[in-house]
Amino acid sequence: MLPRLVPRQPLRLFRWQAACALGASVQRRTWASRIPRPLGPWGAVGNSPPVCRRSSSTPAGGPEVALTQERYPVKRLPFSAPSEADLAAFERIIPGRVVTDTEVLAASNVDWLRTVRGCSRVLLRPRTSEEVAHILRYCHERNLAVNPQGGNTGMVGGSVPVFDEIILSTALMNQVISFHSVSGTLVCQAGCILEELSQYVEARGFIMPLDLGAKGSCHIGGNVATNAGGLRFLRYGSLHGTVLGLEVVLADGTVLNCLSALRKDNTGYDLKQLFIGSEGTLGVITAVSIQCPPKPRAVNVAFLGCPGFAEVLQTFSTCKGLLGEILSAYEFMDAECMWLVRHHLHLTSPVQESPFYVLIETSGSRAEHDAEKLNDFLEQALRSGLVTDGTVATDQMKLKALWALRERISEALSWDGYVYKYDLSLPTDTLYDLVTDLRTRLGSQAKRVVGYGHLGDGNLHLNVTSEAFSRSLLDALEPYVYEWTARQRGSVSAEHGLGFKKKDALHYSKPPAALRLMQQLKALLDPKGILNPYKTLPAQA
Amino acid sequence: MLPRLVPRQPLRLFRWQAACALGASVQRRTWASRIPRPLGPWGAVGNSPPVCRRSSSTPAGGPEVALTQERYPVKRLPFSAPSEADLAAFERIIPGRVVTDTEVLAASNVDWLRTVRGCSRVLLRPRTSEEVAHILRYCHERNLAVNPQGGNTGMVGGSVPVFDEIILSTALMNQVISFHSVSGTLVCQAGCILEELSQYVEARGFIMPLDLGAKGSCHIGGNVATNAGGLRFLRYGSLHGTVLGLEVVLADGTVLNCLSALRKDNTGYDLKQLFIGSEGTLGVITAVSIQCPPKPRAVNVAFLGCPGFAEVLQTFSTCKGLLGEILSAYEFMDAECMWLVRHHLHLTSPVQESPFYVLIETSGSRAEHDAEKLNDFLEQALRSGLVTDGTVATDQMKLKALWALRERISEALSWDGYVYKYDLSLPTDTLYDLVTDLRTRLGSQAKRVVGYGHLGDGNLHLNVTSEAFSRSLLDALEPYVYEWTARQRGSVSAEHGLGFKKKDALHYSKPPAALRLMQQLKALLDPKGILNPYKTLPAQA
Repeated sequence: MLPRLVPRQPLRLFRWQAACALGASVQRRTWASRIPRPLGPWGAVGNSPPVCRRSSSTPAGGPEVALTQERYPVKRLPFSAPSEADLAAFERIIPGRVVTDTEVLAASNVDWLRTVRGCSRVLLRPRTSEEVAHILRYCHERNLAVNPQGGNTGMVGGSVPVFDEIILSTALMNQVISFHSVSGTLVCQAGCILEELSQYVEARGFIMPLDLGAKGSCHIGGNVATNAGGLRFLRYGSLHGTVLGLEVVLADGTVLNCLSALRKDNTGYDLKQLFIGSEGTLGVITAVSIQCPPKPRAVNVAFLGCPGFAEVLQTFSTCKGLLGEILSAYEFMDAECMWLVRHHLHLTSPVQESPFYVLIETSGSRAEHDAEKLNDFLEQALRSGLVTDGTVATDQMKLKALWALRERISEALSWDGYVYKYDLSLPTDTLYDLVTDLRTRLGSQAKRVVGYGHLGDGNLHLNVTSEAFSRSLLDALEPYVYEWTARQRGSVSAEHGLGFKKKDALHYSKPPAALRLMQQLKALLDPKGILNPYKTLPAQA
Repeated sequence: MLPRLVPRQPLRLFRWQAACALGASVQRRTWASRIPRPLGPWGAVGNSPPVCRRSSSTPAGGPEVALTQERYPVKRLPFSAPSEADLAAFERIIPGRVVTDTEVLAASNVDWLRTVRGCSRVLLRPRTSEEVAHILRYCHERNLAVNPQGGNTGMVGGSVPVFDEIILSTALMNQVISFHSVSGTLVCQAGCILEELSQYVEARGFIMPLDLGAKGSCHIGGNVATNAGGLRFLRYGSLHGTVLGLEVVLADGTVLNCLSALRKDNTGYDLKQLFIGSEGTLGVITAVSIQCPPKPRAVNVAFLGCPGFAEVLQTFSTCKGLLGEILSAYEFMDAECMWLVRHHLHLTSPVQESPFYVLIETSGSRAEHDAEKLNDFLEQALRSGLVTDGTVATDQMKLKALWALRERISEALSWDGYVYKYDLSLPTDTLYDLVTDLRTRLGSQAKRVVGYGHLGDGNLHLNVTSEAFSRSLLDALEPYVYEWTARQRGSVSAEHGLGFKKKDALHYSKPPAALRLMQQLKALLDPKGILNPYKTLPAQA
């Protein structure tokens, strides 16, 4: 019936916690166990930008990450520099939780991709919204810039300071506030780690409506602030739909309590939407109310080889038709990606070598119905030549092994050399054309040009590697990739956001009138611009 | 196996097009065939509020609807009154589509519930966003107030003028712009009628992600502007999740083109969200891009009798577990509602008399799987006494007949006397307590107190009738109902919005900080306040 739809070789299994959306590993933070050192006389007073000593923010053993202010053409805005008196004031607000330990700060100043680095000298760890409000009220008055930080797993440099912004960590705001066992509504503080929330709701018969590789580190507040997409988007949709309410502290310390646990609420403007995806530039999310779907009783994953991209698209159409409401993920990767995970991570492919691979997940309430639907789909896909080989898994370990082939691509890429990363939304039909086009354009300049991603959502992760950073290769990529995307009316950031690194590409996906309105909203909500400065929006002329 | 789960009596079938969310009929507009009369010398010049002659806005044959400015304590704001010169200017922008016909205006000045009435003397019918932009630019400069109007099927007086606002109708903006047959993304003008869009996408294998009784009249732009909920919310979620993009004309005539057809786009703030549910007070939606789900291959409706509200809740839990991903609606109504539709509309109940009734809909991709799931659920529900009687329909005509029992309740109510309407979000467990509580509180003051609604979404439609309008009954209801709702942290408007009639109840569901921010957003986007004035937000002190 289903020739070759069993693993051809034993699948290697591995523990790979906490990989990011694009797959590379992120170490779980250990801030909670650190004790802040006594305050030292390091503070500069007034508006003079502090000078960062390189050594102070270089983690032992790691290669030094260039300071953002040195690598990028960015100028410090005239915020106050935190003084001794400021630290003393913070100490009064959150006694014992004002962190100036250089090691902790070194880790918090650098993004996990190790591409941008700030030189903040203080990290605050509030436990409650009231403490956040108190801190922001103080910073607003003193004109101190603030960098809200969740799990620091962002892809675009949005979660670390650019200069000496005060780091406001949500790490200690990690309490579940309530969970409703009939409706599946979870209300929790912003610093709850996604994976811990998943375990919490799964024990109660539900799942989180989002899942991403970084789940072991990322905070739900950061997920909402960046409008994280991830692996369940195809089935459960955007956070704009699943987030029911937010508590947000505004730049001036006002607490905006819109923490509704109701599915429907049409009383006035839906203010929470403003903060979903605003990357901490309009307010600091302190608590989240979110709708959790019931935990599916049956999950299947099929990993299939396709002879071409046209077949990847046709397979998607076919499985949408035959799997219907149980389809929960449709991911694709090209042969180069498979080479990367086999070569660098020693994973084993369960199927014959193919130009493309797709990973299909089903989630449903009745195993035998799901199996029947999946088998019918697989038979049709094989019979019609859309798929040349494949394997199906239903038990947890094998599911994870198959998922790893897709999810660890980014980790494998980081072993391949310097990586140029693009996260694009494109019309599905032409989504892969950019990859083949770039291979021709770049020729031997690039070591590898690979494409993979959430095909079901029209989301391509395009990655280019070279032995080392090359300015001429970057010039060949940008603005070419952005212009190509703009011509297709695509998005230059499908799910990663803009943060610090992509903010100047905004105009490729949004018209001038939209940019103007965004700047006006920023000015309205944060007139002094203290919240996560240098992020999301391009600097104003 | 399933005793009595067949219709006990032949179901009466009826054609009931265009009933509103709460069920009463709305006549399809015929503006498209009207020819505007030549301009007459009726206009007042300057800021003096025009005097409305009652006769001019009273439809022939209908009882007169009191002018809003006479029934409610509302003062005209100092907008200019449209002059002859203004009409001439509009005529230059949209030749032949400046309507001053008194009959057309009479219909457009009154809401379909016939509870509020404005006295606008001009209705504009642009065909393009550019025309809307031109009109708004002009009105902004001239300080003329504008009332955007879609199908005029709103429940809270948001779609008709309060005074002499210029009515800006989207009726002629009714073109589909594009439809993608693989992704199901529909892009269309704001004036497309929901039912016509449904037919359009159904012919292509998709459905609209929303459905409501008013579908025969309501415009998709109005649906988005009011964040319409309706019958498919349980399955496909909020428009905040399914709307992919919007084109909006701002108060000053700026065209904001965020008409993305992409499922994922994290480039900057998600501006479209601001306009979803803002009831035309922040901008005029001129085009919509929306994600349509695949058309289900199998649809079943079960109509069941339950012995008590506790059983209604348990039946919901049971069916969520056993129907899982195919559950697409869970509606309930009490015995009084059944009495109303039988008595006033002569519908026939297909099941034995019960204290409560539930309507369960499944939508799936495989008929035999869905039938098996549904049968298993029904067996369990009957065996455990949660359900005492029931019927199941699979063919279109019977489906509609069963749905009518639920959807025509509001129409039946309107035959019962004067109706006091509340649309509340409440925690599901205590949702019906308010109905029983009110029956005790009101005693013989009320003719009938009924409860029904979208239980799956925690949305109660509470309706109270009396022989005629009674001030003392109103005083017994308000603010009691709002305070009761606020104590439960519910919403005083789950899906109908605030419009003109509920705007002063906003503070029962939103804190002062949220109200302030809403006012600030209004001031930012519409500094002169010309867009749909007197709506959504309470008048500022």
